[in-house]
Amino acid sequence: MAKTKGLTSQQEDFSAWYNEIVYKADLADLSPVRGSMVIKPYGYALWEHIQRSLDDMFKATGHDNLYFPMLIPISFFEREAEHVEGFSPELAVVTHAGGKELEEPLAIRPTSETIIGEMYSKWVQSYRDLPLLYNQWCNVMRWEMRTRPFLRTTEFLWQEGHTAHATAEEAMAETTQMVNVYADFAENFAAIPVIKGEKTEGERFAGALVTYTIEAMMRDSKALQSGTSHYMGTNFSKAFDISFNDVNNEQAYAFTTSWGLSTRMIGAIIMAHGDDKGLIMPPKIAPHQVVIVPIYRKDDQLAKDQVMAAVDELAGQLRDQAVRVKVDSRGGMSPGWKFNEWEQKGVPLRLELGPKDLEAGEVVIANRLKENKETVKLAEASSVVVSALKQFHDDLYERARVFRDERSFVVDDYESFKEKVAQGWVHINHCGKPACEEAIQEETKATPRCIPFVGPETDGPCVRCAEASAYPRKVIFAKAY
Amino acid sequence: MAKTKGLTSQQEDFSAWYNEIVYKADLADLSPVRGSMVIKPYGYALWEHIQRSLDDMFKATGHDNLYFPMLIPISFFEREAEHVEGFSPELAVVTHAGGKELEEPLAIRPTSETIIGEMYSKWVQSYRDLPLLYNQWCNVMRWEMRTRPFLRTTEFLWQEGHTAHATAEEAMAETTQMVNVYADFAENFAAIPVIKGEKTEGERFAGALVTYTIEAMMRDSKALQSGTSHYMGTNFSKAFDISFNDVNNEQAYAFTTSWGLSTRMIGAIIMAHGDDKGLIMPPKIAPHQVVIVPIYRKDDQLAKDQVMAAVDELAGQLRDQAVRVKVDSRGGMSPGWKFNEWEQKGVPLRLELGPKDLEAGEVVIANRLKENKETVKLAEASSVVVSALKQFHDDLYERARVFRDERSFVVDDYESFKEKVAQGWVHINHCGKPACEEAIQEETKATPRCIPFVGPETDGPCVRCAEASAYPRKVIFAKAY
Repeated sequence: MAKTKGLTSQQEDFSAWYNEIVYKADLADLSPVRGSMVIKPYGYALWEHIQRSLDDMFKATGHDNLYFPMLIPISFFEREAEHVEGFSPELAVVTHAGGKELEEPLAIRPTSETIIGEMYSKWVQSYRDLPLLYNQWCNVMRWEMRTRPFLRTTEFLWQEGHTAHATAEEAMAETTQMVNVYADFAENFAAIPVIKGEKTEGERFAGALVTYTIEAMMRDSKALQSGTSHYMGTNFSKAFDISFNDVNNEQAYAFTTSWGLSTRMIGAIIMAHGDDKGLIMPPKIAPHQVVIVPIYRKDDQLAKDQVMAAVDELAGQLRDQAVRVKVDSRGGMSPGWKFNEWEQKGVPLRLELGPKDLEAGEVVIANRLKENKETVKLAEASSVVVSALKQFHDDLYERARVFRDERSFVVDDYESFKEKVAQGWVHINHCGKPACEEAIQEETKATPRCIPFVGPETDGPCVRCAEASAYPRKVIFAKAY
Repeated sequence: MAKTKGLTSQQEDFSAWYNEIVYKADLADLSPVRGSMVIKPYGYALWEHIQRSLDDMFKATGHDNLYFPMLIPISFFEREAEHVEGFSPELAVVTHAGGKELEEPLAIRPTSETIIGEMYSKWVQSYRDLPLLYNQWCNVMRWEMRTRPFLRTTEFLWQEGHTAHATAEEAMAETTQMVNVYADFAENFAAIPVIKGEKTEGERFAGALVTYTIEAMMRDSKALQSGTSHYMGTNFSKAFDISFNDVNNEQAYAFTTSWGLSTRMIGAIIMAHGDDKGLIMPPKIAPHQVVIVPIYRKDDQLAKDQVMAAVDELAGQLRDQAVRVKVDSRGGMSPGWKFNEWEQKGVPLRLELGPKDLEAGEVVIANRLKENKETVKLAEASSVVVSALKQFHDDLYERARVFRDERSFVVDDYESFKEKVAQGWVHINHCGKPACEEAIQEETKATPRCIPFVGPETDGPCVRCAEASAYPRKVIFAKAY
């Protein structure tokens, strides 16, 4: 595979490759504000497709959207002990507004459990008011020290779902449902195979009793946590008094959940699929599924008119089949230059149409996953494209699955663990103790990703400390973003 | 017309009516943060439909979405003299983040011309880079002293378009195009007739050379500015150095525009259409276009099953025609209670279906704009509903237009002006001087709304100060939100 000029190869320096492709493919730009980025139109269009797909799934599972204030009184954070410990160090704080110092400083939301808890307390009086099944799309801010575009920025865009239920069972079912929704999205829209599982105690969300996660393997074999769903029990409902009269007319606390997925998913898509030529976009959420590059000599107006007429007709046929088509009719640059640009931007299919193709009644199809181009009859082009896009999704998913499975290991001793965790993901018997996890991290840089819902069963004591294993299944450890 | 229990009538106290209906119809709730509100699901669903409709229009006119950082270095505001004067007093300022005091305080965007100017300066080098046609959907913050839900809140949601062009003509054409898009949206989606026009000097956006506006009449005959489009000339491109090599290889400054429409539009919809029963939702953007209330006796399971089967079938038929239907099958409340709730929430059409209707093969249709119910054959219900929704839009628009035109006046002397401006909108010859406008405001509380694109021509000196009129058409003055 020819690598793109001026793009560091993944092998050489994956991290440099990532930073370069983000800017070269016009997904984002640096901003004058430390740790923030500008999401450029090509990156934002991807986010819009992610939003639309997820939002449909949220609504299909009974959730409504709403919007809570972005500024939260600092005192709210102090009501839940673990939550304040987790988030206080990262808060951005408004101290002055309207030319005056505020009586109480206001934090920009790093997540909204607290202000939502305050409102739910008002909205929930009786079991008849439950469940509350709400979501909001918004910006949040966490003042991180080391930032990288999409993966970790001080400001980022996300959705945060927050639900309240009458029973623990219902709340747990919601927590499970939403991690399933995220996995469904990752696999069926982003073409990224994910492992669903539970976080160990040391990796849980600040204030949660259970955190479920989807973990995806990037092409440097590191893991990226790509969406999480939390069961809070009554931690937040006690802190914010979300209580209600139950069916027996007794006062009870609600059980709450929260779940979120962010612009980090764009980082996952870049790193799970990209190669040395650049991005590879999953077709279902690609800004452009197909680009058509018309080919003609500048000085041949007749050929240009004929080619453009055929291109417009083909584009129309594709749009009729709900295919997102970009016609690249820019002047002043060669077809070869355009081919490179769209390869770098990862458009799944590129159609090339010139006077000779037109004469033969054909069009050339270049597939971003294949080396060789294909020639098809113009009359059949739109149906070929529609099925090629479906196949592209399957191939892209399968490519990522094979890549991950080849780099996933099950080991029984700590020496093998250290060797294999340098190469990928490793399943081991694990005690679940935060101290043991910290030692593993110090020695190998690997962290526990999750106790997978499905996976090899535990068959002995902790591989590192030899204490009793804590879970029925082996825990996956990996280096992670 | 029967007024809703516990809802102040518009005649009695319009302002109280507004505040009550916002909460009773579940559009929004008070929040613990001064001047902010929670937008509840019913209000947010309306906003989602507004967003979707406008966003389609922005894309159809060649604009792409992107996203800029929310925090802006304070020093950026000082680069454009009028802009800093206009916005500085309203800024909310982050002084601490990540546990430390910031070197330079950061403002939460009140609008994004400055940070966008900084980025455009980087993106524009040559005439080939122009035009830039971008929009972002986001939250903004203006620390207002007196707030009201939707109309004026410290934090609000909006879209802000920002474009840069090689020539003044192109930028002016964009400014005009976007005020036309807003008018198109207001009239054809929100069913609100608007007057398009230009703001006088004293009412322009801080930093603009030209501000176009759409003005709508509320049912207390006050005006609400519902969307604005600004031509900045080179004010911002000089302040932020948005310069480029033009076709003649000479350095030139770009001409910029910006245009915005916010959640204030929800306030416009409430006040342009609502009555003493509550809201009236414009069908094209209504969260629910139709609600079906099944009617049966709690103890008659057979009737319930039959009614619900027919209701589900009817709902399916309507959804097949892309009608947004809500089936209200909640237990524990009477049909009458539900009728009142959906009237208050302004759902355009309510269908009632009980065992007797089913026996007769009929369904009852109640129209939110009419006193009498209608009975139609079940087999024809879906086509009747589809055309009734179209007619509802037209009727709602026409009702608002007649209301406005009956309260619009053209006068020639200041005494008549003072009398008429207490009753509605008044067109007068006007000198255009800020001092004269301030005097008029002091004496009558009215402000200049706009110099309408279409309207009575100027035929004499300023009605108040007798100095020469400044514009070819009379200026509309009105009390305004």
